[in-house]
Amino acid sequence: MKLRELAGRLGCELLGDGEVEIRGVSGLERAGPGDLTFLANPRYAPLLATTRAAAVIVASANESTLPRLVSENPYLAFARAVGLICPPARPEPGVHPSAQVHPTAVLGTGVHVGALAVVGARARVGARSVLHPQVVVYDEVTIGEDCLLHSGVQVRERCRLGDRVIVQNGAVIGGDGFGFARDAEGRYHKFPQVGTVVIEDDVEIGANVAIDRSTLGATVIRRGAKIDNLVQIAHNVVIGENTVVCGLVGISGSVTIGDNVTIAGQVGMADHVTIGSNTTIGAQSGVSKSLEGGQYYLGSPAVPIGLASRQYAVWANLPELSKRVRELEKRLEEIADVKRRDRGDRREDS
Amino acid sequence: MKLRELAGRLGCELLGDGEVEIRGVSGLERAGPGDLTFLANPRYAPLLATTRAAAVIVASANESTLPRLVSENPYLAFARAVGLICPPARPEPGVHPSAQVHPTAVLGTGVHVGALAVVGARARVGARSVLHPQVVVYDEVTIGEDCLLHSGVQVRERCRLGDRVIVQNGAVIGGDGFGFARDAEGRYHKFPQVGTVVIEDDVEIGANVAIDRSTLGATVIRRGAKIDNLVQIAHNVVIGENTVVCGLVGISGSVTIGDNVTIAGQVGMADHVTIGSNTTIGAQSGVSKSLEGGQYYLGSPAVPIGLASRQYAVWANLPELSKRVRELEKRLEEIADVKRRDRGDRREDS
Amino acid sequence: MKLRELAGRLGCELLGDGEVEIRGVSGLERAGPGDLTFLANPRYAPLLATTRAAAVIVASANESTLPRLVSENPYLAFARAVGLICPPARPEPGVHPSAQVHPTAVLGTGVHVGALAVVGARARVGARSVLHPQVVVYDEVTIGEDCLLHSGVQVRERCRLGDRVIVQNGAVIGGDGFGFARDAEGRYHKFPQVGTVVIEDDVEIGANVAIDRSTLGATVIRRGAKIDNLVQIAHNVVIGENTVVCGLVGISGSVTIGDNVTIAGQVGMADHVTIGSNTTIGAQSGVSKSLEGGQYYLGSPAVPIGLASRQYAVWANLPELSKRVRELEKRLEEIADVKRRDRGDRREDS
Repeated sequence: MKLRELAGRLGCELLGDGEVEIRGVSGLERAGPGDLTFLANPRYAPLLATTRAAAVIVASANESTLPRLVSENPYLAFARAVGLICPPARPEPGVHPSAQVHPTAVLGTGVHVGALAVVGARARVGARSVLHPQVVVYDEVTIGEDCLLHSGVQVRERCRLGDRVIVQNGAVIGGDGFGFARDAEGRYHKFPQVGTVVIEDDVEIGANVAIDRSTLGATVIRRGAKIDNLVQIAHNVVIGENTVVCGLVGISGSVTIGDNVTIAGQVGMADHVTIGSNTTIGAQSGVSKSLEGGQYYLGSPAVPIGLASRQYAVWANLPELSKRVRELEKRLEEIADVKRRDRGDRREDS
Repeated sequence: MKLRELAGRLGCELLGDGEVEIRGVSGLERAGPGDLTFLANPRYAPLLATTRAAAVIVASANESTLPRLVSENPYLAFARAVGLICPPARPEPGVHPSAQVHPTAVLGTGVHVGALAVVGARARVGARSVLHPQVVVYDEVTIGEDCLLHSGVQVRERCRLGDRVIVQNGAVIGGDGFGFARDAEGRYHKFPQVGTVVIEDDVEIGANVAIDRSTLGATVIRRGAKIDNLVQIAHNVVIGENTVVCGLVGISGSVTIGDNVTIAGQVGMADHVTIGSNTTIGAQSGVSKSLEGGQYYLGSPAVPIGLASRQYAVWANLPELSKRVRELEKRLEEIADVKRRDRGDRREDS
Repeated sequence: MKLRELAGRLGCELLGDGEVEIRGVSGLERAGPGDLTFLANPRYAPLLATTRAAAVIVASANESTLPRLVSENPYLAFARAVGLICPPARPEPGVHPSAQVHPTAVLGTGVHVGALAVVGARARVGARSVLHPQVVVYDEVTIGEDCLLHSGVQVRERCRLGDRVIVQNGAVIGGDGFGFARDAEGRYHKFPQVGTVVIEDDVEIGANVAIDRSTLGATVIRRGAKIDNLVQIAHNVVIGENTVVCGLVGISGSVTIGDNVTIAGQVGMADHVTIGSNTTIGAQSGVSKSLEGGQYYLGSPAVPIGLASRQYAVWANLPELSKRVRELEKRLEEIADVKRRDRGDRREDS
């Protein structure tokens, strides 16, 4: 694709030779001839002088003399360029003969159902959605349009996915919530999990994620949320719009998370807590209480970052602090000794 | 179902109009006409006055004037009621024509084997057990009666499941333990994991769990234990009866856990430790040493909750503690200065 | 197998009766007649006197009077013996009739493709490799010789596995990296993950692991690395040779890990950090900065073990430290009081 065509499709200003042929994409350092690259972080600006890329996406016209596209958001423009230059292979519409689609299931136009996939009774799959091989869709599931479910994904009975939802391999949507009632002898009895999971539009769900169905209502992942690999989302949880949940996070039952929240890796949350919108929670934090929105929290238990930074600063020197206390005790003991002697002296003086 | 019939089937005392028709189940706040609800936690008692539910399960007769069922354990009674009012869909007995059942496998009466499931040579599946689509049962596996294995579950060679075992989607039972012998050049050589996994009756295992087979003997999950999603259980582990393991917990090799233990989310345990019965371990704790039974532990490293609470209380004010030490040092310095001056004064006096 | 034959095949010195028939393997305590056992850890030497084993592998000839094999590395010799005495069942070469192998895929000699497995277009599987039932191999994947992929494994498009790679059930190799560009309205747009995953020879990957494909280049797991269950490896990560990663570890994007590193369970690593070779990182540590090689680190944030030990030692007594500071404050207050009185006294004196 010529740079001029790319500029048009991305809606970017073009500077320099628009006839340059773009054949690949790469970071600044690894880019070779024919590659498009980008500069988003000013820290890497010096690499512009030495990159062998054919063209670059930059934030302002004078950052480079290479053939270039100018965008307010070079990273986003580059992401879109990658999609244009290296378009993902899209399986042909149609149902593989080895797939098991229940006669009562309804498939929209252009749907692809891969080899050995299973679509249950009364399930609905929207137009142009792709089910890769060995996806399992239980009875009465609804999947929207333009969804992409990778192999090994399991969608349990009655769960609903919106449009443009992407699910990576092995994710489980709608497994039973972890709910039991204990009897007088200490045995646990299953509380039937009769709710569902609702995934709104434009959500992406990572590999081997587990999102449990609700006990009675619905576990909800709102529009545009992005869930990384191996995340545990328990029953009755609500995750807000454009919220990002990183790998190995554990969200306990009935937690409610607002919009535009960022949750770093391995964070854990106790059940029933509420996280306000526009919150960021640092890696490995433990959230034991509800958190007000609009702040950055860190630690286990998680506290506002200002306090957490001071806690960790002391922690770093904790052995030193302990020594200083011992030192204080010694000096105070010496002072007491001296005073005792002093008082003795003065008594002798008088 | 009429409330009167429900009372009979649950063995609960009925108060008020037994002819009320129960069509659904819900929590106190969301319940609508036709719904059965319950009160287990006295904190929610005020909601009884405003609930729109048709009937309620309560612990004592005078808690409500609604048509009601009285139970010593309202939560357990409600759990059972949910199972009666919203009975789970049960697949019809029979083997789906696309399933691959080895001719030497033995299936009990009423077994369901779903689409594209695999049952290996000499495997045995007990009466009325359900294998959902794409379950894989390796050779010589034994599965008891009334088990429920969801799609994507993998049960490896020679593992044994008792009766009424429920396994959520994507769980792996009997993967190789993580055992290697290192040679003089630093390369690791696989230690063949020739043991198995034994899961006793009434165990439930969550989505995408990994339970490794033993090196030589058997990894054992005892009767009634409940394992949440994404839990890692390493080789040679023993988990006791009615023990509850929450999401993302990691249990290292050869750990032995007693009965009635509760392990909260994201806890980690070092290999070879022993956890006594009736223990509770708080979220994100790290267990580096064996723990006596009957106590509540928290922290990393985990210590009895009394000590942990005091540790976390100091941690919350750690920056303050550090300031107080600095303040002490200053004041002590001043005292020393004053003293030096005092001594000088007195010397002049004399 | 007779002990004499075993000695020959392991290349170990034989002492005592070589005609002993070895029928099984076991640890020292559980071993019965006919079992081979071993002593690697001198702590267990007293058990040699009472073991009922038929023979034992030891490090030096005089440790036992049983029929015995002598090896510099008894654990490694025993691991090999287990493989000889209890050889793993190996499926017969051939493609199961229910498997879906694309006509353009190339299978080496002796390959086994199990029931309902899927092999995509232009994929290549090397000689003698085994794909268990329901393995999914996407288009253009390359798998080397003598690999073993267990059921439920997903290998995504264009990923490459070397020789003798073992993948446990449910692992996902090559899921999309977690990369998004945010627009001015706060919505995330997928950054197409056009890279791959390269797994070198002799790597083992645990159950339900997730290894993401790279954004542009390749996520790389180098020769001999061993990855335990439920590990998250993000895009662009490089893991060095003979590095061991234990369960539930989370490795963020673009992390580079050297050779011979050991990472204990539930460790988390921030993106872009570098871990030097020959490093050990203790359980539940949080690595927020790059770590120099050749050391042992612990804690969150991870610091060298010497400092970490002192930090945790103070932590264990943190309530005590807090009390001592309060005590110091009291005593200093008393001293100040006394001094004030003293000065008053002296003023009266003068």
